[in-house]
Amino acid sequence: MLTVQKYGGTSVADPDRIRAVADHIARTRRGGAEVVVVVSAMGKTTDDLLRLAREVARQPHGRELDMLLTAGERISMSLLCMALIDLGVPAVSFTGSQAGIVTDTTHGKAKILEVRGDRIREALARGAVAVVAGFQGISTDRDITTLGRGGSDTTAVALAAALGAEVCEIYTDVSGVFSADPRVVPEARKLSRVSFDEMLEMAATGGRVLALRSVEFARNHHVPIHVRSSFTWEPGTWVVEEDPTVEQAIISAVTHDTSEAKVTIAQVADRPGVAAALFRALADEAINVDMIVQNVSTAGHTDISFTVPRDDLHRALTVVAKVAADLEATGVSHDAGIARVTLVGAGMKSNPGVAARMFEVLAAEGINIEMISTSSIRISCVVAEAEVERAVRALHRAFELEAAS
Amino acid sequence: MLTVQKYGGTSVADPDRIRAVADHIARTRRGGAEVVVVVSAMGKTTDDLLRLAREVARQPHGRELDMLLTAGERISMSLLCMALIDLGVPAVSFTGSQAGIVTDTTHGKAKILEVRGDRIREALARGAVAVVAGFQGISTDRDITTLGRGGSDTTAVALAAALGAEVCEIYTDVSGVFSADPRVVPEARKLSRVSFDEMLEMAATGGRVLALRSVEFARNHHVPIHVRSSFTWEPGTWVVEEDPTVEQAIISAVTHDTSEAKVTIAQVADRPGVAAALFRALADEAINVDMIVQNVSTAGHTDISFTVPRDDLHRALTVVAKVAADLEATGVSHDAGIARVTLVGAGMKSNPGVAARMFEVLAAEGINIEMISTSSIRISCVVAEAEVERAVRALHRAFELEAAS
Repeated sequence: MLTVQKYGGTSVADPDRIRAVADHIARTRRGGAEVVVVVSAMGKTTDDLLRLAREVARQPHGRELDMLLTAGERISMSLLCMALIDLGVPAVSFTGSQAGIVTDTTHGKAKILEVRGDRIREALARGAVAVVAGFQGISTDRDITTLGRGGSDTTAVALAAALGAEVCEIYTDVSGVFSADPRVVPEARKLSRVSFDEMLEMAATGGRVLALRSVEFARNHHVPIHVRSSFTWEPGTWVVEEDPTVEQAIISAVTHDTSEAKVTIAQVADRPGVAAALFRALADEAINVDMIVQNVSTAGHTDISFTVPRDDLHRALTVVAKVAADLEATGVSHDAGIARVTLVGAGMKSNPGVAARMFEVLAAEGINIEMISTSSIRISCVVAEAEVERAVRALHRAFELEAAS
Repeated sequence: MLTVQKYGGTSVADPDRIRAVADHIARTRRGGAEVVVVVSAMGKTTDDLLRLAREVARQPHGRELDMLLTAGERISMSLLCMALIDLGVPAVSFTGSQAGIVTDTTHGKAKILEVRGDRIREALARGAVAVVAGFQGISTDRDITTLGRGGSDTTAVALAAALGAEVCEIYTDVSGVFSADPRVVPEARKLSRVSFDEMLEMAATGGRVLALRSVEFARNHHVPIHVRSSFTWEPGTWVVEEDPTVEQAIISAVTHDTSEAKVTIAQVADRPGVAAALFRALADEAINVDMIVQNVSTAGHTDISFTVPRDDLHRALTVVAKVAADLEATGVSHDAGIARVTLVGAGMKSNPGVAARMFEVLAAEGINIEMISTSSIRISCVVAEAEVERAVRALHRAFELEAAS
């Protein structure tokens, strides 16, 4: 049996934590499992390196920034190996390059193309623990790349898939995936099990525990993930294939997200190609549009609203202003003070009326809904940012998410 | 014309220093030279990493320690490249592995077996500055290795030899090689030129500016070295082949070293194989014996004295105690309070009487000589540690080393 364990930055933040992690790996191994470990950089190392980069260059060069940042995992992985060897556990560290994690050439957010893993297999065959640097790979041009936000989770899942691991354990500073953010809803419940699809919707709508890309990768390669705490070591949340023989909870979680802003273009001509022109222009600027809502046309004109990351609002408005003129829109407005509240649940598919109930709960709280968007297992509403935490609490209560499922 | 420039840790200690170095490289390049740069880790990075290692493991594992320490140059080289690119100078960083610096498998003090340098040549052909991590390579087993003390100097000289550079500039925090340690002899003079052989003797006897191995490598591969300051950028000291057409200075420098201890074995039998048994036993423990003096035999017995690094004294005494019993020696004594003072000069070969003059000077100062050792261009005396600085000053004055040569 092979287990892949991934430890985030807080899990290896200092020598004491590293020794605690080494001890847990040793125990896992005594339990009979082969272990491959993926580590992030210690604590705030990546931030510290980024600050140095900005002190030497106005716009740090992508290739060199990746070279710089990968020093972080190099440090944490070699320290973890030393700690393991000190406990009598044979261990060998591998950079992304040595582990055969081959990526495309997009510095800063490279995509994994292939996981070779020969040296990892050799290490396991020798009875050693393989410790692999997360977040990094080597490009087809033989340059060092990084995988971007949440990259270490992706490394872990990709290795688990390539090596045929039974489980990919993601150790972090929270004890699992919760029915809502416990800082907002103190009675939020730890979920023992969520489906890949639910986890994807949660990751996309504000649940920050797992990075979206790693969940997609796990779903596509059928890798069970176990999210758990490296501080309490208690069982956490399993993210797995949906089990068709078990009745799904109608709602698993309420998520919220305050990182977006809303843009509205008023009274554009309702003719083919209008939306295409607008969103092509935004895509060309690499602005990530999330929700899009277009109202029913009245008198041959319509309003289009969409959300973008707040950090990109200024750039988005520049693009939109240009396109709006071409489209003869009457105006462009925006609002950075919005938030999104979302219900996620695999059982929603077979239970009509969830949306209506959600709107009733928000109405009863006097919270105005500005935009609505749905998928088969998700309903999102845009509300005023100032009201979102109240909305989350009301929905969590109304759908009785604090009760054990 | 190709120049290799090596910058030590103090030269790239912080973002300001890194930008100053980038500026100097840019100016060198505008002067028409192709430039390959070798960097050490920033400031105290290596010490910080070593401290972390000792906090996670009682005896950090060699392979993992090398993996850890090489993070240091990775950080400095990528920051330097960013700073260069920010100045409009194309630059590409290479790890020891990417630069094709192939070593043996001795972690912590690997020897360079081969310098491939293909990617460096490609970078130069594209008009870029190649910035290479010092101190590191990749072993024939594909593991990351470090070259040990002074390893970045060795990297620089090896690259200069492999690439056919006209000069290897070693930038440091002193302005060159001096006729004595300026902290001991304030009127010590910067030497404009020393021979490889003189530099080797100086490096071996306490002159800490260049590491011994890098000078040996430079001599064997005929690479001229220019040691200079990255703080004042003024011309420093050239270390070059001896010029047979120029009369050599009789004495170039006085060096001293307080890092050794003396061990004496009294009254061992004077028969073949005695010295061999003793020094084989020490060599097997990897204890580096420096000076060895054996007195003339009286009544079939002799005394043997030798020096070892003070850090190894305890281990050396354990070895010697065992061997002494086998050799029926009457006793073993040791003294950690010694120092070595050395005169180095290529002109000594053709000038008899230097040794006599040295002993006279020390006698006039009332300084007792405990051991003597000579080569064709060096005379070393072991004296009490408390008297060594006075010995250095007296010799520097007596041989008029403060005068321009």
